[in-house]
Amino acid sequence: MLGHRIRRKSLLDKVTTPEAAASLIKDGMIIGMSGFTRAGDAKAVPIAMVEKAKSDPFKITLITGASLGHDIDRMLTEAGILARRMPFQVDRTLRAAINRGEVMFIDQHLSETVEHLRSHQLGPLDYAVVEAAAITEDGGIVPSTSIGNSASFAILAKKIIVEINLSQPLALEGVHDVYIPTKRPTRVPIPVVACDSRVGFPYVPIDPDKIAAIVVTNEKDSFSTVEAPDAETQAIAAHLIHFFEREVAIGRLDLSLQPLQAGIGTIANSVLAGLADGPFRDLRMYSEVLQDSTFDLFDAGKLSFASASSITLSAACSDRVFNQFHKYKDRLVLRPQEISNHPEVIRRLGVIGINTALEVDIYGNINSTHVNGTHMMNGIGGSGDFARNAYLSIFVTKSLAKGGRISSVVPMVPHVDHTEHDVDVIVTENGLADLRELAPRERAGLIVTHCAHPDYREALLDYFQRAMARGGNTPHLLGEAFSWHMRQQATGTMK
Amino acid sequence: MLGHRIRRKSLLDKVTTPEAAASLIKDGMIIGMSGFTRAGDAKAVPIAMVEKAKSDPFKITLITGASLGHDIDRMLTEAGILARRMPFQVDRTLRAAINRGEVMFIDQHLSETVEHLRSHQLGPLDYAVVEAAAITEDGGIVPSTSIGNSASFAILAKKIIVEINLSQPLALEGVHDVYIPTKRPTRVPIPVVACDSRVGFPYVPIDPDKIAAIVVTNEKDSFSTVEAPDAETQAIAAHLIHFFEREVAIGRLDLSLQPLQAGIGTIANSVLAGLADGPFRDLRMYSEVLQDSTFDLFDAGKLSFASASSITLSAACSDRVFNQFHKYKDRLVLRPQEISNHPEVIRRLGVIGINTALEVDIYGNINSTHVNGTHMMNGIGGSGDFARNAYLSIFVTKSLAKGGRISSVVPMVPHVDHTEHDVDVIVTENGLADLRELAPRERAGLIVTHCAHPDYREALLDYFQRAMARGGNTPHLLGEAFSWHMRQQATGTMK
Repeated sequence: MLGHRIRRKSLLDKVTTPEAAASLIKDGMIIGMSGFTRAGDAKAVPIAMVEKAKSDPFKITLITGASLGHDIDRMLTEAGILARRMPFQVDRTLRAAINRGEVMFIDQHLSETVEHLRSHQLGPLDYAVVEAAAITEDGGIVPSTSIGNSASFAILAKKIIVEINLSQPLALEGVHDVYIPTKRPTRVPIPVVACDSRVGFPYVPIDPDKIAAIVVTNEKDSFSTVEAPDAETQAIAAHLIHFFEREVAIGRLDLSLQPLQAGIGTIANSVLAGLADGPFRDLRMYSEVLQDSTFDLFDAGKLSFASASSITLSAACSDRVFNQFHKYKDRLVLRPQEISNHPEVIRRLGVIGINTALEVDIYGNINSTHVNGTHMMNGIGGSGDFARNAYLSIFVTKSLAKGGRISSVVPMVPHVDHTEHDVDVIVTENGLADLRELAPRERAGLIVTHCAHPDYREALLDYFQRAMARGGNTPHLLGEAFSWHMRQQATGTMK
Repeated sequence: MLGHRIRRKSLLDKVTTPEAAASLIKDGMIIGMSGFTRAGDAKAVPIAMVEKAKSDPFKITLITGASLGHDIDRMLTEAGILARRMPFQVDRTLRAAINRGEVMFIDQHLSETVEHLRSHQLGPLDYAVVEAAAITEDGGIVPSTSIGNSASFAILAKKIIVEINLSQPLALEGVHDVYIPTKRPTRVPIPVVACDSRVGFPYVPIDPDKIAAIVVTNEKDSFSTVEAPDAETQAIAAHLIHFFEREVAIGRLDLSLQPLQAGIGTIANSVLAGLADGPFRDLRMYSEVLQDSTFDLFDAGKLSFASASSITLSAACSDRVFNQFHKYKDRLVLRPQEISNHPEVIRRLGVIGINTALEVDIYGNINSTHVNGTHMMNGIGGSGDFARNAYLSIFVTKSLAKGGRISSVVPMVPHVDHTEHDVDVIVTENGLADLRELAPRERAGLIVTHCAHPDYREALLDYFQRAMARGGNTPHLLGEAFSWHMRQQATGTMK
């Protein structure tokens, strides 16, 4: 059985226990670990690291693709192992430690981390710990449900620990396309010219002598926590479908639109699923994560191809997809996140990016990450890679949070992840603001009247009008700009 | 004489007066006009438009490459001609009209404007008004000292007005490389793989039948207003040279560094000139504007090649360069600003971007544009194109402004043009903060102690420490974050 998974026979000698593999990880090391939106994360070695730390405390810098599953970030945090963490996370316990200043969190555009490693501005990596579906005859690593940063981690690390996960279907082999940009100063264009371009290897090419240990696991990925569409996300989807229909009607788009990207999470997932209800056909995705909505669109006959860096599904959808993976495989490709999120490719293809905002301000600046401008939620992730380079950059949010006590449209966001230059369209359940080629004062009128909840509209307009009396390209009253956030902190509501 | 400049004889019939050409421009039109950092701007038609407006008032949307010379933006503003203006300007009168809300200013990343035109999200252009050194036998337009957006303006506009400027040396012919990205969905990689790549035409290929009028002018470009280095800009340059030397010593860079970009203005120009004093050699530039410093580096034997979208020089340097242009010509290329500033190429080449900040905050977010968060200075220009995609993104500023009454390091910037993710290094005359791979709390310590002026350091540290007590990944006190700006507005000083 293992011979089908570890096809280079000499490597069978490297199979060992998670404990033995974890014993290689020492205090002060920089570790690159697989995992992107819960998918394809290392599952056994990090748990063994937590056990080891109980008797032998140590701290590391942990770099991943993006978020991990299986509460691994929680356990690593509780064990005191994380000195530094990058480039993304979604764990409640880790987040609290970051916000207490106990873990140094470096929040990065997801396309950039391995550039920093490759140019020796970060690293060197002591170990890459990567999940694989198989190892080829040549020692190539076949990733599982994500590539993330694993390919470059394995290529750049001094040594590699591989977790062969028997629960990951071998049918995944062939879905990956591992292309790594060549070294500067002789770097050539990335040859991806369409969602379905295949330009690399179906495995990660490495020197097999770098494999220090192989651990065998048999645990599934953590399932996604995406919630079902509700009335508000359905309304957001309806506004967006109407907008796309209008763009088609005036000849800017055809019914296949442009390649679609949808951010991680419930709202973007719902919006994407909502496209099944429109007149669109031959849709393509060039995204970072494929969620349930991707396979809903495939099954609805709406989607012709999907490219991403990971597949993260609910339990039900996971069964549906992986039990009949042949139905989808030739319409899927998984890429390193550097390529799925690369500015070069996103701009070339003309991607429509749909990302979620925590809050937006009246001029269209976006806070995606920091509650009250201070406390980290998850991280900027790939939203900046897409929003900056997209043909159309769309941000979606519900207009209210916390039962109406918080307005998602505020006078000024206290943390900016995306500036107004990178935001073309904002959609809430109330409506859609098409901000293209508008000046800030024009943007404000549209955002307040189309997107803000009626309960907060009058107060926003009052702020904007009083600010305009003071002049400026982006009029503001600095003494009041954050008064809504401060009121909410003091009284529990922005009202 | 004119036959050397207008080599397609049939077009000689199109030569007319500026007044006749200006009469083609009607109320409500969208006009694309040449000009990038004062260089290669249309000089006669806009003046004739101002005259025409005196008896026949009209308003237009004016799109340029970047800033214009010859007070043209002032005159167009005073004549009430500008309804909308994009993507950049530097004029005091226009700026005031923008800040009064009289001219709608759309501040854009300079690489993006023609993407919007090409995809019909902006436009269509009624007229392109472009300066040329010549028109070829085939009707191709040979630009002058800038390309900017002129190539795509001419290609995409319904009609073209050409200003043949006899004062622009014919020797400019051959320095241009006009490559326009192909249409989606069949767009191919931009083939620029080095600063000296030549991948397009030395002229703008257009249908000569689109040329509606040709006007002959004989006026030089406005000279640059860049000031000479002073003690502070020299100190900034010295810190940066020391930093680059250290990067070379530890093997991250060699003495040719990486292709250099320097933003428009006195500080970036001085810093670049300062590199002549370091041990570097075979430097290359991949920038948007070539200022005096570029030619100082050529003359010092330090620079091997320079690529940009325009050449903007002081009077003295202009004489030196254009009287012996053959000395430099084969080491120069001018490109459309879409290509000089393209994310794809900047990231591929690994550019070192050096841009100027108006102010920085303790976490390294940058305000480049809005005084007190509200009043527009110039615009974001190309700084975002470079800062986001650079191998190293460096921001420079003097630590004080207005004779010490303003600190350029503040608790929170009231307008964000560049988020901390896009800022690797900050330099003031006091020192350099290397922020790479650091968490926000770590960045704050370095920025305050290395970059802030000693007069403000204690107050910044006090803010940071009290904010940390409230927790967060980027600790802030929302009620105080803008107190420095408000104090300066009320009392004239941040102290």
